[in-house]
Amino acid sequence: MSQNQPVSSTTAITDYELENGLQIVVIEDHRTPVATHMVWYKNGSADDPQGKSGIAHFLEHLMFKGTKTHPKGEFSNIVAELGGQENAFTSVDYTAYYQRIAKEHLGTMMSFEADRMINLILSEEDVNPEREVVLEERLMRTDSDPGAQLQESIAATLFTHHPYGTPIIGWEHEIRDLNREDALDYYTRFYTPENAILIVAGDVSPEDVKRLAQETYGKIPRHNLAPQRVRTLEPAPRTARRVSMTDEKVEQPVFQQAFLVPTYRIAKGNDAEALDVLCQLLGGSSVSRLYKTLVIEKEMATNVGCWYMSTALDQAQFMLYGVPREGITLEALEQASNAVISELASNLVPEAELERAKTRLMADVIYAQDNQTSLARIYGTTLATGSSIESVAQWPQMIEAVTSEDVRRVAAKYLNPQIAVTGHLLKAA
Amino acid sequence: MSQNQPVSSTTAITDYELENGLQIVVIEDHRTPVATHMVWYKNGSADDPQGKSGIAHFLEHLMFKGTKTHPKGEFSNIVAELGGQENAFTSVDYTAYYQRIAKEHLGTMMSFEADRMINLILSEEDVNPEREVVLEERLMRTDSDPGAQLQESIAATLFTHHPYGTPIIGWEHEIRDLNREDALDYYTRFYTPENAILIVAGDVSPEDVKRLAQETYGKIPRHNLAPQRVRTLEPAPRTARRVSMTDEKVEQPVFQQAFLVPTYRIAKGNDAEALDVLCQLLGGSSVSRLYKTLVIEKEMATNVGCWYMSTALDQAQFMLYGVPREGITLEALEQASNAVISELASNLVPEAELERAKTRLMADVIYAQDNQTSLARIYGTTLATGSSIESVAQWPQMIEAVTSEDVRRVAAKYLNPQIAVTGHLLKAA
Repeated sequence: MSQNQPVSSTTAITDYELENGLQIVVIEDHRTPVATHMVWYKNGSADDPQGKSGIAHFLEHLMFKGTKTHPKGEFSNIVAELGGQENAFTSVDYTAYYQRIAKEHLGTMMSFEADRMINLILSEEDVNPEREVVLEERLMRTDSDPGAQLQESIAATLFTHHPYGTPIIGWEHEIRDLNREDALDYYTRFYTPENAILIVAGDVSPEDVKRLAQETYGKIPRHNLAPQRVRTLEPAPRTARRVSMTDEKVEQPVFQQAFLVPTYRIAKGNDAEALDVLCQLLGGSSVSRLYKTLVIEKEMATNVGCWYMSTALDQAQFMLYGVPREGITLEALEQASNAVISELASNLVPEAELERAKTRLMADVIYAQDNQTSLARIYGTTLATGSSIESVAQWPQMIEAVTSEDVRRVAAKYLNPQIAVTGHLLKAA
Repeated sequence: MSQNQPVSSTTAITDYELENGLQIVVIEDHRTPVATHMVWYKNGSADDPQGKSGIAHFLEHLMFKGTKTHPKGEFSNIVAELGGQENAFTSVDYTAYYQRIAKEHLGTMMSFEADRMINLILSEEDVNPEREVVLEERLMRTDSDPGAQLQESIAATLFTHHPYGTPIIGWEHEIRDLNREDALDYYTRFYTPENAILIVAGDVSPEDVKRLAQETYGKIPRHNLAPQRVRTLEPAPRTARRVSMTDEKVEQPVFQQAFLVPTYRIAKGNDAEALDVLCQLLGGSSVSRLYKTLVIEKEMATNVGCWYMSTALDQAQFMLYGVPREGITLEALEQASNAVISELASNLVPEAELERAKTRLMADVIYAQDNQTSLARIYGTTLATGSSIESVAQWPQMIEAVTSEDVRRVAAKYLNPQIAVTGHLLKAA
């Protein structure tokens, strides 16, 4: 598999920590004179306090409201004037901010980003309209989309006790009550150098990054109180649960099935790697099992897929889906999908098929690494969910080592429809 | 409806508060020289801290382990020697301890109960074996009973965000980690005079009770920190969810359907009273709709019922169930049950049927009041879930005022299978 040598093994990665606890990772990429500058905070929606769902995401919005030093809009204006790009995202386990910019402006980005790690100012005049923006975002993305509502309900049903069952954006009635004080409490608790990871990828040297970081982030004092994540453990599922949503707005029925599975951080042995390969074998491409069986051979579906939330702090979702052809019921599609799973749980996949799946899986990750921002994001996600820099480099070998028996074992162990959450999206008659 | 004059309207109820915040309710019942002595704490399993499910119930067990003044077993021995009864129970919203005893021993009971409100001692030697007792209790009641597991999963699915989805006894893996410190933290937080209600029912005078209470509970200082209940609001359900459990140990298949409904404390208008009447109309007796239709007319079921968790702090469950006759599928039974609901949501019940249901409903409560302990429990439950003493006396009139249109309205509003959780318990083939 020489064509799959990971970029990471030839990429120079340097990491160190400032005295205030800020972790720094430099990923050298000298192809173009550009740098990606990212700050990751190790807190996401699953760290929202009880009754304050949506606060991690709301604060992400509010982080653009200006500081003691730089009024609202100044940071974004400068990024735009310098021809850069910027964005931010909130996940279940982390919140991140980034800019992509010509390398000579890296110091400017650091100066602004370090400033808003400590100097955020929030006025009621900024907080209240922004809450309306978030509510509008929820309305557009979820409340007016039956498919999104089904997804939300599947997650809420799969995670009965663990906070991954709560939507990242929050429940509407709790978003309505989020206020300035909630945002500042959360900011004070989590936006600290000890809880952050600085990732710089690009045409830079580790020494330059270290110097610039010292001059900017280095001035922020330690909070001397590492923020604690209170995460409950989801109890082992014992029942088959079904969620259905019937709505006039549904144009295309969909079958989904979600299983509770371990992630890289918590899996025993190589279960996470085997689940990654299994997901690829099941639904990763037009030669995958679900596609070959349901779309081509049986002509029951027009689309199928698999998705595995492999990089998360706690137990997470493994999701299959299928869109039926006209005249095919979701029940029939589900039965056929179950047969595909059952086959993989009972019999070993042929060696050639296994190798093709591994090749595709690794290729996907390698292609992602070709993009500087995606590359930086791989390290950010890995570190923010409790895995190590080394695990990125070791990953291809770990995937390579997955056997047909590993795949069969995890299919039998985790993809049991009797303890899954099955979703049906239906068009109202 | 003169035959239904409630006992409460002729029962003398006196209530007052000690200086330390302890609320006292005296219910005079002079039929026999007996007294029921109860202390209710306004905290239940829904107040368990995140990741510490089961602590309210575990502490209830540990409250029998002795104090600085009275070694383990002394209190229970004295109750037994005096010919009394004692017990304790933990619910989602409250925890209560009670003794039933000849009235001359009331002061002794108060002295012991006040003592363990403040002087509990917990040693590792007591805590560790008791945790095993609780784990064994869970094993016996839930983990070896597929029906109980289905119930647990229905609740966990209905309540995605609110703590009523967590079992009172706790999730096994969290019970295993509960320790002495958790129990003491919880005890310090909630076992305070400000958070307690003393209820004495029996052949007593309010003056005597007040004097005795002052001499015992009155000596406990205020904690000056009212314990806060952090309760999240369950988002409005939007999907139909189904939970099934198939197991060899199942002897009798069961169909269940749970709806999220308001309770007396939070319902708008008379929705709670109307739901109470609706539950009686649906499943309260052999002349109820479900029974007449499914058991007698259609001969599809051998048993049916309805249960409404009306007295709770937050939104709660309204549950229907049915046991099919041999040869009838759960799907067929469910369809027939849905038709019964749909009929009640569409058409007004005849006046005579409505009146019979109200009569039965009120009779049940009145019969319960004939038992001194049940009578005391009605007041404890009512007060511990945020309703008033007056509401007990007013309840019969409120039920009397429920109209056929009220019943139709709440059936249409809340008993919608498209947003319910439906459970199927099945025998493994």
